[in-house]
Amino acid sequence: MNNELRQLLEDVRDGSVSIDEAVLKLKKKPYEDLDYAKVDLHRQVRQGATEVIYGAGKTSEQIIGIVNALVNNGQETVLITRLDKEKAEAIKKQVDFNYYEVARIGVVGSMPASNGLGKVVIVTGGTSGIPVAEEAAITAEALGNEVERLYDVGVAGLHRLLSHVDVLMEAKVIVAIAGMEGALASVVGGLVDCPVIAVPTSVGYGASFEGLSALLSMLNSCASGVSVVNIDNGFGAGYMASMINHITKVD
Amino acid sequence: MNNELRQLLEDVRDGSVSIDEAVLKLKKKPYEDLDYAKVDLHRQVRQGATEVIYGAGKTSEQIIGIVNALVNNGQETVLITRLDKEKAEAIKKQVDFNYYEVARIGVVGSMPASNGLGKVVIVTGGTSGIPVAEEAAITAEALGNEVERLYDVGVAGLHRLLSHVDVLMEAKVIVAIAGMEGALASVVGGLVDCPVIAVPTSVGYGASFEGLSALLSMLNSCASGVSVVNIDNGFGAGYMASMINHITKVD
Amino acid sequence: MNNELRQLLEDVRDGSVSIDEAVLKLKKKPYEDLDYAKVDLHRQVRQGATEVIYGAGKTSEQIIGIVNALVNNGQETVLITRLDKEKAEAIKKQVDFNYYEVARIGVVGSMPASNGLGKVVIVTGGTSGIPVAEEAAITAEALGNEVERLYDVGVAGLHRLLSHVDVLMEAKVIVAIAGMEGALASVVGGLVDCPVIAVPTSVGYGASFEGLSALLSMLNSCASGVSVVNIDNGFGAGYMASMINHITKVD
Amino acid sequence: MNNELRQLLEDVRDGSVSIDEAVLKLKKKPYEDLDYAKVDLHRQVRQGATEVIYGAGKTSEQIIGIVNALVNNGQETVLITRLDKEKAEAIKKQVDFNYYEVARIGVVGSMPASNGLGKVVIVTGGTSGIPVAEEAAITAEALGNEVERLYDVGVAGLHRLLSHVDVLMEAKVIVAIAGMEGALASVVGGLVDCPVIAVPTSVGYGASFEGLSALLSMLNSCASGVSVVNIDNGFGAGYMASMINHITKVD
Amino acid sequence: MNNELRQLLEDVRDGSVSIDEAVLKLKKKPYEDLDYAKVDLHRQVRQGATEVIYGAGKTSEQIIGIVNALVNNGQETVLITRLDKEKAEAIKKQVDFNYYEVARIGVVGSMPASNGLGKVVIVTGGTSGIPVAEEAAITAEALGNEVERLYDVGVAGLHRLLSHVDVLMEAKVIVAIAGMEGALASVVGGLVDCPVIAVPTSVGYGASFEGLSALLSMLNSCASGVSVVNIDNGFGAGYMASMINHITKVD
Amino acid sequence: MNNELRQLLEDVRDGSVSIDEAVLKLKKKPYEDLDYAKVDLHRQVRQGATEVIYGAGKTSEQIIGIVNALVNNGQETVLITRLDKEKAEAIKKQVDFNYYEVARIGVVGSMPASNGLGKVVIVTGGTSGIPVAEEAAITAEALGNEVERLYDVGVAGLHRLLSHVDVLMEAKVIVAIAGMEGALASVVGGLVDCPVIAVPTSVGYGASFEGLSALLSMLNSCASGVSVVNIDNGFGAGYMASMINHITKVD
Amino acid sequence: MNNELRQLLEDVRDGSVSIDEAVLKLKKKPYEDLDYAKVDLHRQVRQGATEVIYGAGKTSEQIIGIVNALVNNGQETVLITRLDKEKAEAIKKQVDFNYYEVARIGVVGSMPASNGLGKVVIVTGGTSGIPVAEEAAITAEALGNEVERLYDVGVAGLHRLLSHVDVLMEAKVIVAIAGMEGALASVVGGLVDCPVIAVPTSVGYGASFEGLSALLSMLNSCASGVSVVNIDNGFGAGYMASMINHITKVD
Amino acid sequence: MNNELRQLLEDVRDGSVSIDEAVLKLKKKPYEDLDYAKVDLHRQVRQGATEVIYGAGKTSEQIIGIVNALVNNGQETVLITRLDKEKAEAIKKQVDFNYYEVARIGVVGSMPASNGLGKVVIVTGGTSGIPVAEEAAITAEALGNEVERLYDVGVAGLHRLLSHVDVLMEAKVIVAIAGMEGALASVVGGLVDCPVIAVPTSVGYGASFEGLSALLSMLNSCASGVSVVNIDNGFGAGYMASMINHITKVD
Repeated sequence: MNNELRQLLEDVRDGSVSIDEAVLKLKKKPYEDLDYAKVDLHRQVRQGATEVIYGAGKTSEQIIGIVNALVNNGQETVLITRLDKEKAEAIKKQVDFNYYEVARIGVVGSMPASNGLGKVVIVTGGTSGIPVAEEAAITAEALGNEVERLYDVGVAGLHRLLSHVDVLMEAKVIVAIAGMEGALASVVGGLVDCPVIAVPTSVGYGASFEGLSALLSMLNSCASGVSVVNIDNGFGAGYMASMINHITKVD
Repeated sequence: MNNELRQLLEDVRDGSVSIDEAVLKLKKKPYEDLDYAKVDLHRQVRQGATEVIYGAGKTSEQIIGIVNALVNNGQETVLITRLDKEKAEAIKKQVDFNYYEVARIGVVGSMPASNGLGKVVIVTGGTSGIPVAEEAAITAEALGNEVERLYDVGVAGLHRLLSHVDVLMEAKVIVAIAGMEGALASVVGGLVDCPVIAVPTSVGYGASFEGLSALLSMLNSCASGVSVVNIDNGFGAGYMASMINHITKVD
Repeated sequence: MNNELRQLLEDVRDGSVSIDEAVLKLKKKPYEDLDYAKVDLHRQVRQGATEVIYGAGKTSEQIIGIVNALVNNGQETVLITRLDKEKAEAIKKQVDFNYYEVARIGVVGSMPASNGLGKVVIVTGGTSGIPVAEEAAITAEALGNEVERLYDVGVAGLHRLLSHVDVLMEAKVIVAIAGMEGALASVVGGLVDCPVIAVPTSVGYGASFEGLSALLSMLNSCASGVSVVNIDNGFGAGYMASMINHITKVD
Repeated sequence: MNNELRQLLEDVRDGSVSIDEAVLKLKKKPYEDLDYAKVDLHRQVRQGATEVIYGAGKTSEQIIGIVNALVNNGQETVLITRLDKEKAEAIKKQVDFNYYEVARIGVVGSMPASNGLGKVVIVTGGTSGIPVAEEAAITAEALGNEVERLYDVGVAGLHRLLSHVDVLMEAKVIVAIAGMEGALASVVGGLVDCPVIAVPTSVGYGASFEGLSALLSMLNSCASGVSVVNIDNGFGAGYMASMINHITKVD
Repeated sequence: MNNELRQLLEDVRDGSVSIDEAVLKLKKKPYEDLDYAKVDLHRQVRQGATEVIYGAGKTSEQIIGIVNALVNNGQETVLITRLDKEKAEAIKKQVDFNYYEVARIGVVGSMPASNGLGKVVIVTGGTSGIPVAEEAAITAEALGNEVERLYDVGVAGLHRLLSHVDVLMEAKVIVAIAGMEGALASVVGGLVDCPVIAVPTSVGYGASFEGLSALLSMLNSCASGVSVVNIDNGFGAGYMASMINHITKVD
Repeated sequence: MNNELRQLLEDVRDGSVSIDEAVLKLKKKPYEDLDYAKVDLHRQVRQGATEVIYGAGKTSEQIIGIVNALVNNGQETVLITRLDKEKAEAIKKQVDFNYYEVARIGVVGSMPASNGLGKVVIVTGGTSGIPVAEEAAITAEALGNEVERLYDVGVAGLHRLLSHVDVLMEAKVIVAIAGMEGALASVVGGLVDCPVIAVPTSVGYGASFEGLSALLSMLNSCASGVSVVNIDNGFGAGYMASMINHITKVD
Repeated sequence: MNNELRQLLEDVRDGSVSIDEAVLKLKKKPYEDLDYAKVDLHRQVRQGATEVIYGAGKTSEQIIGIVNALVNNGQETVLITRLDKEKAEAIKKQVDFNYYEVARIGVVGSMPASNGLGKVVIVTGGTSGIPVAEEAAITAEALGNEVERLYDVGVAGLHRLLSHVDVLMEAKVIVAIAGMEGALASVVGGLVDCPVIAVPTSVGYGASFEGLSALLSMLNSCASGVSVVNIDNGFGAGYMASMINHITKVD
Repeated sequence: MNNELRQLLEDVRDGSVSIDEAVLKLKKKPYEDLDYAKVDLHRQVRQGATEVIYGAGKTSEQIIGIVNALVNNGQETVLITRLDKEKAEAIKKQVDFNYYEVARIGVVGSMPASNGLGKVVIVTGGTSGIPVAEEAAITAEALGNEVERLYDVGVAGLHRLLSHVDVLMEAKVIVAIAGMEGALASVVGGLVDCPVIAVPTSVGYGASFEGLSALLSMLNSCASGVSVVNIDNGFGAGYMASMINHITKVD
């Protein structure tokens, strides 16, 4: 790279490059060397066969366009998140894909075989958190994970959770989903020795303040090994869980 | 009461009461009939032998004055809450009383015998909640309750709590004290069939926001039979617990 | 229990249990001993003849399914809370039950006779809090309590409240419901000597911030013997009141 | 004023004023016509014999300087608010004045005779609000009002307030000061037919959030005729009360 | 105010009304047995000829019922606030009244003559605050005040406000209404020497947080003589202004 | 800017416009008698050829009225912001103008030629911020700026931004628009040496709290040369950018 | 992890440890009678050789007592977090240990060899986050991880971060620590393909609101694979990172 | 700006500096291997002759080290912000510099001549905002701006501001600093036609919530051409103002 700089200075000296051009070139230097294609390639490597489209705020036309571009480019699996039923039906007319209504996810192409280190266990405190849980579950499955669902095992009826301790114990990573007081993350985190990704949900009313209560609860978890994603962010938790569950595969 | 009104009108007619006096008298009517002494007596009945002084924001001289007035008036037990050590020592020079340093409570006179329906069990999630717990405990004891303490049984190590389920099961009322994520109230509330008074504490840091996290958690408890008092309000919880534990004694 | 452990170790020594199996068994130990059935039985004991279904976020089909399962199992009374009119009508086509529209509660089966210690008095500051009050009232009635309603007696017209002091005085437990500034809980708490369960409501506008104002007010009540449940949580207050009102019946 | 404009345009035409000068002059027009001296005079008229210095954030030297300037200018009474004891003592070495320690107010010169329409009644819920109350009281007195103090009459012991209903009824304007749940303003507002200025205080702990609870409470008062000033703003309330109490004197 | 009561007493004194008739008229007074009608009577004693019904959260049937009861009882003017157009039309079929659509206020009976000390001036920063302003204006007019409106004179174009300084100067009390940054209250408060009632509105977007920005602004006003009511509470401001504007009439 | 005013003065100086004509044109100036039209004239003095109407909260009739008044008064370009499609169509029936649907802006009259110092570059983190970006862009164009759009270059895929560093480097002022975590402003601010106007958007969910997250992020930017406008305030950013981009033209 | 337990079982199987000895070692297990020491043993089963004491809120005497109990029980490494210098010096008089002042951590016993899957990289935006970063780093090292520190590479000077992309790329897990606007987590998350644990810090002033700004930013990260722990919770991040970095060792 | 870099390139072109010397000077450029010194060089390219050190959270030793490195590297002016008096005195023992105590800024080297487009006017609402104002003023001066100070001209006494309208009118850019209700920014923004950088301060009490009130106020300013920096961020405002005031010099 010193050569490039030396060449520029020589060009300045020779007058073949003006002072103004040289100043501009020198100001941009530090950023130009981060090669777009390299980064891009690297994203490919990371995400493997599955690409993700955030469906909310995109028209069905836009989504179809992106899907086609990806599929033509050889993409095996395409995940469309936050896809409501109406849009899904509009897209179905032109693209063949599976729609998971509860999870609000569309999957174009085949689901990959699970190739993670172990199981991703997804736990919810109640039934109202299931849409968020399914978003996490389908995401994880589409990224190549074996998923086990353990729903409606909230802490107010502890025996429901404790009677499934063996499922929890066998997990490689756990996604704990709860609204209201969000205590599930702490209780699960205290039971197991694997990472727990906590997802607060906006389920609740009054002083749950749209998920704030569960969010603060989870951030303050007295159990070690718990980290938190955004309210209702099932996708983010499923993605993070998959990353952890595939951690040694990269090497 | 109609007589009184009739008399007033007659006085107006006779000129022995002016229009202005009558207007004033008629405007005050609805409130005057709530008899001061009756209410006062009623407070005596309610609180029995124990009177409470909120020590914070009062000088030691003021506290001594009130204590003396109460004792001279025949009060058997006087509770002084939020009493810091310094003031306690200043008061000790003039008044004989027991000082509970951790609870920051002074008790003048003898502790009453416990005469409640059963036991008040006070549970904390960690050791840092103990000052709040002791405030609740001494308050309850000074109001005539048998108290059992169960400290440092937070949900991150659930077995600690579960191994004492029998103690919880025997309680008439439970005071559940926790900071950070405040999950203890929900877990305890789900295990027992007696009322649970939840006390959020300001223990924690960062996103605990001085107890807000635990407060919201407890208000959103998914367990039924849980109600909440102010952050760090051990006294309020002990008082409420005592009220519940003495509930049939009033009849 | 030492025998169980000893047996496990012998099995390890004998090779009939692998190291991995033994590690897993030893890790689960502390939680397995909390017997599911016992807890379950205990919940039965606690809630007696009445079971509760939280209707919000459940389809009418799901609710019908749960009701049938419970009734077939011998449940005498089933309470369905947060049940909107539309769902209620859909359910009515298949299940016979009473629908309390203002309270948004459905009751399957007969209302139990009141068997509490005394009366539960439910007080509101205005007329807008009545739906929350009715949720509390029907809940308490369905759990076997005699309920007295005292509506629209807010503190801005104090005589309305004071003229009913005798009703308040006779209560075993009071549920105080108010939106806006939530002062009712403190005023009632200062008048009576029984526990007061305060319910902030989302009634109000502007700086009431959906019930936050009333919630904070009630948590900061300067009256002793007041504890608080979530905003608009009439069910929780009714349940807690019933628990307190039945407290000696458990023994 | 058209003459002035016409003159300016003629000057432009004549070249005696440049385009740039004229543009600047035309841009400033709408604001220049608000005469400084007039406004100033008007402030004099309004505040009469008493001038106010906000002492917080000023050094004692600065305060002495301002006081001297005012006194030399013929000011009869000078009020220094938020003046802590240390500064007061420093100032006393050079200026003769009365220091009200609880109110943290210094008054230079004589207190004016009370010349308002009637009495300003200042009410507090507890003893901890007294410093704020005294700030309001001394302010009102220094502005020429007769003040009656009614302290420690909080709503948790309603009889304390009700037994003084006559004092409230005789007020021309009431300043109601309370921390914690701030219910006093609503209760007082519901009892009287004069304006109530509510002052939330930062007295409290936990969920009082430094006065936020009382502030929201007072803003949501269900009583008509209540308006609110900033947390702990005793001066503001005293000033507003004085304004109302002197309202017809201006004419 | 209180003219009606005073007249009754004079009639008693003069013998034109017998004691029995007077007792009949005053019977069912609030302090006697306090059913609904009695409440009203007591309010009348305090508030004079105008009664107020808060229309939000009441059905048109309920409103008609209350109006009829009041009118039959001799009420001259009845104000119905927060009355939306649909309800207003439903009520019109049975009750004759004027509906002020922008103010969302219905007025049954005749508007009283203005009998205050002077003018109430109502100022808004923009056009979006006009509904709140009209609520304040009609309220004040219905309570017997001469009202002058000064709309859309926000601080971003200061000359608009300054050119009407004379109107402000002549006011007995000013209601200052603004959303967004709420600066109007401070600027007006600094210009005049009469009380200013500030009303924050929920007009704005983003960081106005539904009126919070204007509310905080107004509470922190650096001008003396400004107090604040709830967000969008035009009625409260109009009522408070009327109280102040009638202040000497009580004597 | 101010060209029109300057031209008028030059015409006066040159004698091509008489004093009387000039007075006529300037008559009804804001400081004279300030009715609505006058206000506009004064704004024109400040803002030059483009006038802005905030469309939200105005009826289409009101908007048409204002537009006509402005156009009749010689206004070349009128900008109507926050104009939804429905109103736009209603207005189109009577006024000829261009409607930019994404930006929700209507432009009456011709777009001015760009006469700023350089380019205004408008950057967004994602596609959901484009409506806000277009509001900024059309505003800036209508105020005489050359605008370059750089959309969907959020920091999670840094190469997208870095590959356009040259566009950023050539900007005179940058408007950086982002929701969610709002990191774009800091990253852009760290790359360039021109002022950056940051616009947080309400795009996001959960803990984005309607734009609060992005707002706080941008206010705390660790890059120098970044200032912030209200959430979703594309107009404000475009206006500020234009002001900066025209800064030397005033001299 | 669990090596110790596994070793014990292998010794049992091999006969080198008798059943009685093993029972003795495992006796006082958590599920047996759960006093304080037993808790620790069970934690050891889960966490392997390193035990953690939260130092804040414990006296130095208490800490010494716990350390001794653990060491006597065979614990190789004991971590004491949130240990201020004063307490550290008091403890040093009785216990031999290394004190890391910046990290406020004490380590009793030897640091374990790193036995994770790869490197834990700890990144900070500025120098003020270094104490939090060191807490994370020492925690991770004490739990057997190789740690690489990359401090002061905030997004306002992006080249600082980009020039170390290779370090980031080699990480198995990254801990990203930032105050103020917290943008670092998103930028790092967008660059790498390993899990990122984000730690908001309370570094900043004004609208950073003690870390709230960074917290919200990180929760709203537009990059996938980012999860968040509590404000300033370096320990939690280090612990979580270690868990992830050791994930395959369990099998 | 960039003069130094430009000079170096000219020297290369002129032959007065050899390619090797230039490479040496530019070597360790940020994009090459980016150690600490290189960072500075790149910043210098952007910021010209003045370098800034954020003093808070750095020891005086660290500050001295950085200053020496910069000065040895040829830096003419070094600004040290948030430098408290104690540290300043410690540094003075080793480095010669001017300390501006009110602004808490140290300036090493000579102040540059002002070379901006015009004047930066700095306005405060009261005296308590002066430290923030001076931070902005010294920053702007150190970056080569002529600064005019206009302090204590808050909106509660509008004449104070209006009597200086000419100063405001002549500004190229205005920094408006206010605490409490922050109305100053809107009023100033409505008066002038240049960009206004608003700085909320933490001055105030109660509901000012440490500057939140002023911050929201300023973000919601109804005046166009106002943007906002962080609470108390005088440096940021001064920097932004300087950027704007130097905007055409880049070309």
